[in-house]
Amino acid sequence: MAQRALSVSRMTGNRSTFADWYQAVVREADMAEPSPVRGAMVIKPWGYGIWEEMQRDLDRRIKETGHQNAYFPLFIPLSFIAKEAEHVEGFAKEMAVVTHHRLKNIDGKLMPDPEAKLEEPYIVRPTSETIIGDAFSRWIKSHRDLPMLINQWANVVRWEMRPRLFLRTTEFLWQEGHTAHATEKEAVEETMRMLEVYRAFAEDTLAVPVISGEKPANERFPGAVATYSIEAMMQDGKALQAGTSHYLGTHFSEAQNIRFQDDAGQLSFCHTTSWGLSTRMIGALVMSHGDDDGLRLPPAAAPRQVVIVPMLRDKPEDAQILEFCDSIVAALKGQRAFDERLRVLLDNRGLKSADKRWNWVRRGAPIIVEIGARDAASGTVTFMRRDALRDGDKVKSHALSRDEFVAKVPAMLQEIQRGLFEEAKKRTYANIKTDIKSWDALAEYFGAAGDDDNSEFKGWVRAPWSRPEGAELEALDAKLKTLKLTLRNVPAGQSGASGTCIFSGKPGVEEILISRAY
Amino acid sequence: MAQRALSVSRMTGNRSTFADWYQAVVREADMAEPSPVRGAMVIKPWGYGIWEEMQRDLDRRIKETGHQNAYFPLFIPLSFIAKEAEHVEGFAKEMAVVTHHRLKNIDGKLMPDPEAKLEEPYIVRPTSETIIGDAFSRWIKSHRDLPMLINQWANVVRWEMRPRLFLRTTEFLWQEGHTAHATEKEAVEETMRMLEVYRAFAEDTLAVPVISGEKPANERFPGAVATYSIEAMMQDGKALQAGTSHYLGTHFSEAQNIRFQDDAGQLSFCHTTSWGLSTRMIGALVMSHGDDDGLRLPPAAAPRQVVIVPMLRDKPEDAQILEFCDSIVAALKGQRAFDERLRVLLDNRGLKSADKRWNWVRRGAPIIVEIGARDAASGTVTFMRRDALRDGDKVKSHALSRDEFVAKVPAMLQEIQRGLFEEAKKRTYANIKTDIKSWDALAEYFGAAGDDDNSEFKGWVRAPWSRPEGAELEALDAKLKTLKLTLRNVPAGQSGASGTCIFSGKPGVEEILISRAY
Repeated sequence: MAQRALSVSRMTGNRSTFADWYQAVVREADMAEPSPVRGAMVIKPWGYGIWEEMQRDLDRRIKETGHQNAYFPLFIPLSFIAKEAEHVEGFAKEMAVVTHHRLKNIDGKLMPDPEAKLEEPYIVRPTSETIIGDAFSRWIKSHRDLPMLINQWANVVRWEMRPRLFLRTTEFLWQEGHTAHATEKEAVEETMRMLEVYRAFAEDTLAVPVISGEKPANERFPGAVATYSIEAMMQDGKALQAGTSHYLGTHFSEAQNIRFQDDAGQLSFCHTTSWGLSTRMIGALVMSHGDDDGLRLPPAAAPRQVVIVPMLRDKPEDAQILEFCDSIVAALKGQRAFDERLRVLLDNRGLKSADKRWNWVRRGAPIIVEIGARDAASGTVTFMRRDALRDGDKVKSHALSRDEFVAKVPAMLQEIQRGLFEEAKKRTYANIKTDIKSWDALAEYFGAAGDDDNSEFKGWVRAPWSRPEGAELEALDAKLKTLKLTLRNVPAGQSGASGTCIFSGKPGVEEILISRAY
Repeated sequence: MAQRALSVSRMTGNRSTFADWYQAVVREADMAEPSPVRGAMVIKPWGYGIWEEMQRDLDRRIKETGHQNAYFPLFIPLSFIAKEAEHVEGFAKEMAVVTHHRLKNIDGKLMPDPEAKLEEPYIVRPTSETIIGDAFSRWIKSHRDLPMLINQWANVVRWEMRPRLFLRTTEFLWQEGHTAHATEKEAVEETMRMLEVYRAFAEDTLAVPVISGEKPANERFPGAVATYSIEAMMQDGKALQAGTSHYLGTHFSEAQNIRFQDDAGQLSFCHTTSWGLSTRMIGALVMSHGDDDGLRLPPAAAPRQVVIVPMLRDKPEDAQILEFCDSIVAALKGQRAFDERLRVLLDNRGLKSADKRWNWVRRGAPIIVEIGARDAASGTVTFMRRDALRDGDKVKSHALSRDEFVAKVPAMLQEIQRGLFEEAKKRTYANIKTDIKSWDALAEYFGAAGDDDNSEFKGWVRAPWSRPEGAELEALDAKLKTLKLTLRNVPAGQSGASGTCIFSGKPGVEEILISRAY
């Protein structure tokens, strides 16, 4: 095999190698690393820069749909959680618990001060429904206060036993929207509106194709009437739930007394929603677009869209090279793409230029420019496109005059963005099987390889089902688990029943996606 | 006294009323409120919107000076804190301690699961020197990795016994910069550079005049070689430390083994710095610019710079009013101020227009427009300027043709920004007394009112001192405390000694600021 920028190949279809490849990309692209805190990561500048671009774009979309940001406490009194646990089935209990508010030096050892034990322990928020609901119960009095449309950007903590960078970490960053409405209709509309915001964000900004739909009852957020998700297919064929939107009915407003007075003076419970998208999405980005040379970033979410590497040799020509580079930077900064100024970097770190080149290849900068003495003398810009780095095994480089390059960059970035999306979309839709007609066929298809850690690329199955509930659904869920499969979602926009339920043989009422998943 | 928009007056000079006034502004301007978590606040959308403007502006300044953002864990292993405690005197122990990672239902009561006790407790970060230093010790190998210039936007927790919204809260939001350098000279330059970034941010964006200078040894950050601050004078004459920048020498790099290999292959400890600015600054904004009608926002930090209130009456003319308002909004959105697009809001909430007017007055929107049927018919814009709301007791309103108004808004916003700054600056400098020559004079000046809770406006004293250290400084600090006074900072840019130390009678080596403080 030819030399690539990473030491580990994806080898699509081999999952254990894919997991190693994922870790290698995250590490070699300087995105994140494990920390001394169990399950928590350090997000390094390049990874955090990607998150900042995501935040900026998604925040704009959230504000354009009428929401305002606010900030609520990190800690949640245990009594709030206890009240929720009474109202909600399937409530998870793995949470960080704060029990003391002071350290003390006891016999030369620093430890929690027994005299500073909290009367009521605090939980570090795993999500904020209860503490935000408490505020809503104070803020909402009349129908004129509705809809209440709030979003929060925050860190949350959920104890993870098998952490993986970005995908599953004890602490992660996210936004969580929380809204309250006068009617079910408005709350359901809000739930669907935010699902669509997530879809548009994933597809248009991150170039990650997703399928929107409703989760089956066993995958609902505890306390939700309905949970919707966007699901993305990774390059190993597994699904990744990339964002969720919940219609909560009046469950939370009843638990927390969120009521409003209508026109007639009648008190009613609000219908609430919540929706969240997290740093997990960075993992989706890596596993959607990465290749054996590292990350490939969609330009709309790239902290730097064009990186210029001067090829300096400690010679008199260096001054001319730098001058030419500066002129390219200045000209590019006057250009716009995706309705914003271009994000350009001149990499003047004191490293070898070949090291810089490969560093930016691994980090996935969309356009990488290399300027040597000959380029500077002739006014030529030599560059690589990260979306199409190689011709066979050789790195492919292009050359244009400076003015031509500068003029073409915005269109080139658009083309890269579109190209990454089309590539991922084609792969996704080509790998949703619709010809599985029975449980046995499903078992044979997914079961063949047996061991999940070393199985072939399988993609997803889309098949009719009878939408069972209760014990029947639980039994199905358990049976699917034996194949390491899960029900993902019921894709939106279906025209109606089609065929026989592959699980029960009953008439199908809709089609559902089935796959292995993160 | 004439009617004002707040129920409580500042009554400058009466501190107990000032404290009530501060609370009233924060409450009536919908900025923040207490939460069910002891000492923690809920930052409401208008307060958070101000923080977002601050963040955006300060983040730009931090990046322009070469820093990159990253994100480090919320939790810090107790052993890291213990190691720091060994190296650092005066280390504070009031911290939130996480001891369990699961809840359990025991006899019908939800409580920390005894089987899920952490082997090593975690501390919720009060600041991140240790956890970031740990990463630096891995990231820094050679002089080519220096300087390492990192910033983090984060929430931090410090147990507060006497919390006050924004000024002192158990949890607050801030940025913390952490940098490592090869030499003392570079680290000290960095410390001063960031102090200057804070000064420029406070004065140019928030219109809050500040005095930059070095803190005396007793006010240093534990472990710092030198701590610098910006200090602002509030309208009750007290000082508020609004940002700090620390040169940490090699104390932290020695504790955490942050070393680099120089050109000659020699290993040396890095010189590190840290600097932080928090949501406390929002408190400074309120107490610098607020008046008896509520908050007054400097336009550069206002989430909405122009708010338009349509005076609707459920009559046919309403359509014409809204059409005219829309045309003003559209025209204003094409205008720029402070190098950005104008931030304009059409307030179409279903409230009485008089209530909306006073709501925006209390929230401090710089320009408030009211459009009635007559305005719409004649194409006139009627507006108030929040910086000069009244003529005597009457609210002062202005009228301009639409085109003239739209054309003038950018200059008007600049004028409001400058005006607020000049007003606060004049008040600050007029209230720094330089004619106090002895301890007795100081005691007489500040002591007169006796009770801090009901004392007159005193401002600050600037006086020569001999820069004592150790026990002598501690004794002075204790003596000052009897007058509820503190040493603030030694203003930068002094030409040299001037007069006799007012504390010791020895020759003075520099002048220092003395005052009551938040």
